[in-house]
Amino acid sequence: MRKVCVVVSSHTDYVGVKTIMQAIKEHEDLELQFIVGGSALLERFGASVNYMIDDGFAPDAQIYMEVEGDNLMTMAKTVGLAIIETAVTLERLQPDIVLIVGDRYETISAAIAASYMNIPLAQTMCGEISGTIDEHIRHAITKLAHIHFPATRLSEQRILRMGEDPEHVYMVGCPTVDRIINGAQDDNLDIFDRFKGVGGRLDLSEPFLLAMQHPVTTEYQDARRQIEETLSALQTLKMPTIMIWPNIDAGHAAMAKGIRTFRENNEVDNWLHMFKNLPPDVFLNLLDKCACLIGNSNCGIREAPALGTPVVNIGTRQKGRERASNVIDVDYNRHKIIDAILTQYAHGKYTPNFLYGDGRAGKRIADILATCELNINKRMTY
Amino acid sequence: MRKVCVVVSSHTDYVGVKTIMQAIKEHEDLELQFIVGGSALLERFGASVNYMIDDGFAPDAQIYMEVEGDNLMTMAKTVGLAIIETAVTLERLQPDIVLIVGDRYETISAAIAASYMNIPLAQTMCGEISGTIDEHIRHAITKLAHIHFPATRLSEQRILRMGEDPEHVYMVGCPTVDRIINGAQDDNLDIFDRFKGVGGRLDLSEPFLLAMQHPVTTEYQDARRQIEETLSALQTLKMPTIMIWPNIDAGHAAMAKGIRTFRENNEVDNWLHMFKNLPPDVFLNLLDKCACLIGNSNCGIREAPALGTPVVNIGTRQKGRERASNVIDVDYNRHKIIDAILTQYAHGKYTPNFLYGDGRAGKRIADILATCELNINKRMTY
Amino acid sequence: MRKVCVVVSSHTDYVGVKTIMQAIKEHEDLELQFIVGGSALLERFGASVNYMIDDGFAPDAQIYMEVEGDNLMTMAKTVGLAIIETAVTLERLQPDIVLIVGDRYETISAAIAASYMNIPLAQTMCGEISGTIDEHIRHAITKLAHIHFPATRLSEQRILRMGEDPEHVYMVGCPTVDRIINGAQDDNLDIFDRFKGVGGRLDLSEPFLLAMQHPVTTEYQDARRQIEETLSALQTLKMPTIMIWPNIDAGHAAMAKGIRTFRENNEVDNWLHMFKNLPPDVFLNLLDKCACLIGNSNCGIREAPALGTPVVNIGTRQKGRERASNVIDVDYNRHKIIDAILTQYAHGKYTPNFLYGDGRAGKRIADILATCELNINKRMTY
Amino acid sequence: MRKVCVVVSSHTDYVGVKTIMQAIKEHEDLELQFIVGGSALLERFGASVNYMIDDGFAPDAQIYMEVEGDNLMTMAKTVGLAIIETAVTLERLQPDIVLIVGDRYETISAAIAASYMNIPLAQTMCGEISGTIDEHIRHAITKLAHIHFPATRLSEQRILRMGEDPEHVYMVGCPTVDRIINGAQDDNLDIFDRFKGVGGRLDLSEPFLLAMQHPVTTEYQDARRQIEETLSALQTLKMPTIMIWPNIDAGHAAMAKGIRTFRENNEVDNWLHMFKNLPPDVFLNLLDKCACLIGNSNCGIREAPALGTPVVNIGTRQKGRERASNVIDVDYNRHKIIDAILTQYAHGKYTPNFLYGDGRAGKRIADILATCELNINKRMTY
Repeated sequence: MRKVCVVVSSHTDYVGVKTIMQAIKEHEDLELQFIVGGSALLERFGASVNYMIDDGFAPDAQIYMEVEGDNLMTMAKTVGLAIIETAVTLERLQPDIVLIVGDRYETISAAIAASYMNIPLAQTMCGEISGTIDEHIRHAITKLAHIHFPATRLSEQRILRMGEDPEHVYMVGCPTVDRIINGAQDDNLDIFDRFKGVGGRLDLSEPFLLAMQHPVTTEYQDARRQIEETLSALQTLKMPTIMIWPNIDAGHAAMAKGIRTFRENNEVDNWLHMFKNLPPDVFLNLLDKCACLIGNSNCGIREAPALGTPVVNIGTRQKGRERASNVIDVDYNRHKIIDAILTQYAHGKYTPNFLYGDGRAGKRIADILATCELNINKRMTY
Repeated sequence: MRKVCVVVSSHTDYVGVKTIMQAIKEHEDLELQFIVGGSALLERFGASVNYMIDDGFAPDAQIYMEVEGDNLMTMAKTVGLAIIETAVTLERLQPDIVLIVGDRYETISAAIAASYMNIPLAQTMCGEISGTIDEHIRHAITKLAHIHFPATRLSEQRILRMGEDPEHVYMVGCPTVDRIINGAQDDNLDIFDRFKGVGGRLDLSEPFLLAMQHPVTTEYQDARRQIEETLSALQTLKMPTIMIWPNIDAGHAAMAKGIRTFRENNEVDNWLHMFKNLPPDVFLNLLDKCACLIGNSNCGIREAPALGTPVVNIGTRQKGRERASNVIDVDYNRHKIIDAILTQYAHGKYTPNFLYGDGRAGKRIADILATCELNINKRMTY
Repeated sequence: MRKVCVVVSSHTDYVGVKTIMQAIKEHEDLELQFIVGGSALLERFGASVNYMIDDGFAPDAQIYMEVEGDNLMTMAKTVGLAIIETAVTLERLQPDIVLIVGDRYETISAAIAASYMNIPLAQTMCGEISGTIDEHIRHAITKLAHIHFPATRLSEQRILRMGEDPEHVYMVGCPTVDRIINGAQDDNLDIFDRFKGVGGRLDLSEPFLLAMQHPVTTEYQDARRQIEETLSALQTLKMPTIMIWPNIDAGHAAMAKGIRTFRENNEVDNWLHMFKNLPPDVFLNLLDKCACLIGNSNCGIREAPALGTPVVNIGTRQKGRERASNVIDVDYNRHKIIDAILTQYAHGKYTPNFLYGDGRAGKRIADILATCELNINKRMTY
Repeated sequence: MRKVCVVVSSHTDYVGVKTIMQAIKEHEDLELQFIVGGSALLERFGASVNYMIDDGFAPDAQIYMEVEGDNLMTMAKTVGLAIIETAVTLERLQPDIVLIVGDRYETISAAIAASYMNIPLAQTMCGEISGTIDEHIRHAITKLAHIHFPATRLSEQRILRMGEDPEHVYMVGCPTVDRIINGAQDDNLDIFDRFKGVGGRLDLSEPFLLAMQHPVTTEYQDARRQIEETLSALQTLKMPTIMIWPNIDAGHAAMAKGIRTFRENNEVDNWLHMFKNLPPDVFLNLLDKCACLIGNSNCGIREAPALGTPVVNIGTRQKGRERASNVIDVDYNRHKIIDAILTQYAHGKYTPNFLYGDGRAGKRIADILATCELNINKRMTY
């Protein structure tokens, strides 16, 4: 009975591993361990740990790691604090495998703790290209990981070219797509009563927009201007808009200040409603129903194509990621953002595209973890 | 005037950057900043910070980071503590570039702090293959680094194959070889008076052995047996032997206990003398004069060939590193170690081989750092 | 030339040491060192470090120490992180004396770092009695401190009874009162333009209220209800009200949520305006001009009597502190709060009372620090 | 069923709580939780956690907290790291009471973590006077503690005079004396085979000395000279001497170096044998049988009088502690140490004196913990 310890540190992480966690939990040869940390614990970022608990995943440890400051140095300090506490937690839980998602600072903390403790490390969403510091961290983690779960053929090839052993690279598709194909959407659109948030009650039977824009750490001093361009574009259009709060990456406080000031200075309650975040299945429903997703979230690249949802992707954060035809890329420029939204609105839904997976990633990953060779010695293949 | 911050955390690190630091210090367009941490500060490991100060390098910061425990978890915790404090120190020093050496846990701490703080990162000794956790860490750091200084053509090719941008990969040779070619040896063999250590006063005009064996973290529970095999072999031969203390990697306390018990239980003062470490130039002289180097140190692979010194390399720690014909590899086995030493002793000096460089690495690196493009955005090339 | 390192971690700390810092800076035998940390660095709590810089105090170090989470455990973790970094900073600054204020978690961090580093420690606002965890911490720090600056005769007596050496206990008065007597008030009432905040523009020529209520850590799970009682009382009265945001103690997020929800659910812009904080001299002016101060802030007990300002003090936070007749104490109960405000409003200004000092504390403290004996060995007197 | 969490961080701590732990374990209304940390985990300091496990106390958490460096700053950093991890551990264990011993840096870490987490805190060995930083820390902890267990009437009075509530101060005697009265001595004197150590096999049927000298942190730069005076005195006498290694307080590395150099430079194997430490019951037997205890250990003041063992107490570490007539105090001076040892040897055993307790402290403490009022609100009594 292998113990697989899944480390989740943000709402996005959770969206990316939910079906894996379910598959592990249901697998007769696996035992699920579950560490939750980072912004997933914080009210200010929506405390999505509560969604996890509601879904039946009781954490084995909750790691409060975020050193407040919203600057690059505090991000680095957060990594340090996270490593210390994750190491202690892994010593207590004694997992056989640590499974991590992608490329965030909380993720590399778990990767480093596991590496030095000789615990085999499995990574999902690896081999992809993007912008921001995540690009560097993702591949650094790959060089620490023993088991690789890329989502696409191209990602798989990159991992192999980086010198990873083909025997431990498994192209499984992206777990985020599993939920779409399995029909996980929560169709109850009464989100204003259910999840409060701030702003007016919008009529979601009208065409509406979904916005979600995160800081780019490598451009973090530009964060406020970046969000203001988007807000200004949305303000011009005044279509009903659901906006999700920026994540905790350096620059978030500047973005938050930009949003708060915008809300104070403009009459927005008739078209804008903000949520810190929403349960994954509720969000998925909105992503499906919205006329267009605007911002720089992963989900525009990964989940939206499978739903056929049009996307206006802003800036460098997703630069280099494989994408389907549902995405229009624009710069941080209010006029270009408006134009792109109008184009997407005119186009309407795209034909669904499954370049990020066939919906069986979670189950595949669990099966592999139950049987794959575990060996902490790895060496570059060339 | 670019500020280059060199991070040194161990005696070995220092040997690897000394000529770079000199070249930076002398370069009119560069300013040297210098952080020293880890075992280099600790009496128990020879406090080699004192050698650095004697060489004219006054530290801008001394980071006490080692969480004691000699196990894998405390190594991980040390990384965490090191990141926290290195981040604070970089914020204070505001360097334009951070330069790190190789692959140790203190090294990845500096790499992560610099990465999250958007400071361009340069790495030496990259692209090499070895054993122990260092193998993983070295390549993970490469994925974080912006400027790469491999020592050999093969290492350079590996880095390019890993997807690093050719414009930022510079094959410069290994700085450790600079000192050999520049004749840095300190010829004064009166080391027992000068540096004390423990054990008898040996006659170094006789053929003598030099031994240096470090823990392998991925085999750390076997550390004591590993050193005992070597000690037993040396005990059989009873040639005059200078032995350097194991480094601080997990397993060192078990090795230290093995050595202390061996010294208590055997009459060794007539053939064995131990030093925690020695100034780099004094060690280089011993490496040149000894009949054979025994153990698993880097320097058997890097510096010894340039001196023609025979080497008996034990175990997996150097597995995969490019080597010249001066090295005989053996397993952790007292009989095989004895045989190999006798073979090397019979052979005597080898023809010098410069596969690790032509002696101008330090100067080259400084020149490149003074002029190279600095850009924190990097992306995999494929 | 003695180096005195003042450690400031919150807006309140700063109010309590501003005149000391000025006096140290102007003293010819003293050199001021200045560490700022904690919530004083955070935008979310008003970043009052900016006021300090505006006042001419450039920090020698900025310590980001707050581990986010708004619970008791993260308060404790924050203390730990603060000690680590304060120790490193003190090692760099090498002060002759560390001066701290009162009783907060950031304060005990500095006290412990200084104590273990054999640096003489001076404490202000000591010997007082209050509620919340501060009560314990204040006296614990006194047992670590070498030089004591109580503000009142009673506080002085308590410190002597606790076994401190009379030679090192100096009754100097409270530095917060210095500013009142020196006429530091900033009379410009155009605070809505100058400092923004949220809420409507109020007419401050009308009688107005000032509200300021912090969490009580020993009752932290009751924090939301406590603020709701106050808000409900204020809502009933609808007098123009300036409210200052709660400080960072555990419970603040619950209070903040209470305030935000209250603002969303009620029409308050015509009577309520909120600031994260205000420059000390601006606040002092409001404290002087307001019809009544409501909440549980220190300043109702210390500064308000010297101004004759009526105070409604709510709950246990100030329990046990010496107070003048300007204070009415009430429980967390909306009806009692309303009654007390109405009583105070009817009463109007009180005769000024200077039980917390004669306005020369800062200068006295600087003079003593310049000449007092410094000796890290202290022993209880009985 | 109250959960009492005992925190032990050093061999000495354990000696001080062993009988309390036994009594808690046997008490039907109490559940024992047990955190072990600090030097008690480290091989270099004898890893006395093994004795605890042998005694049937399996730790609920092992906290590796020691930041290596042997200086004052690393002591402070260790406190910080200890608080972080202790807070996390207490959150997991959810004790009703935390019980700590005395005055060490690991102790105040637990005290602070518990205080901020609103967990009632009980302290033993409080109210005593001594030298070194422990003097300050002990009383600071008392101001944080809710339940006080002084060992003597005088200590009890000091705690009351410090303003603690008489209802929560219990004069119980010192648990270290329990073991003497209960006859815990391990009479097997074959310690050289059983516990190894270094040095010659001594004839313990002859009169022998027991030596145990720790660093004094407030004099830490004098540590080496202090131990050298003692060693020189012992060297003159050349009586069979069992010496216990210094504890981990700042200065220990200098002392260790002094001892190692002394052993290398002198022929000592015929009279000196060193142990890192010994199981409590074995040590107690030696303390009973030895002709004289030399050094500055607590046990000369607490346990030795109950056994009638003569003591030569050196320096300031025990300054101010109540003592019986079995103790001669001397300065750090080899000649005075020799004279005092000879005087004590001539005198022989003293009449046992029980000023530190009647041997029932452990049981009393457990009974009180099972029934006493638990209330985190405390206030100074005056």
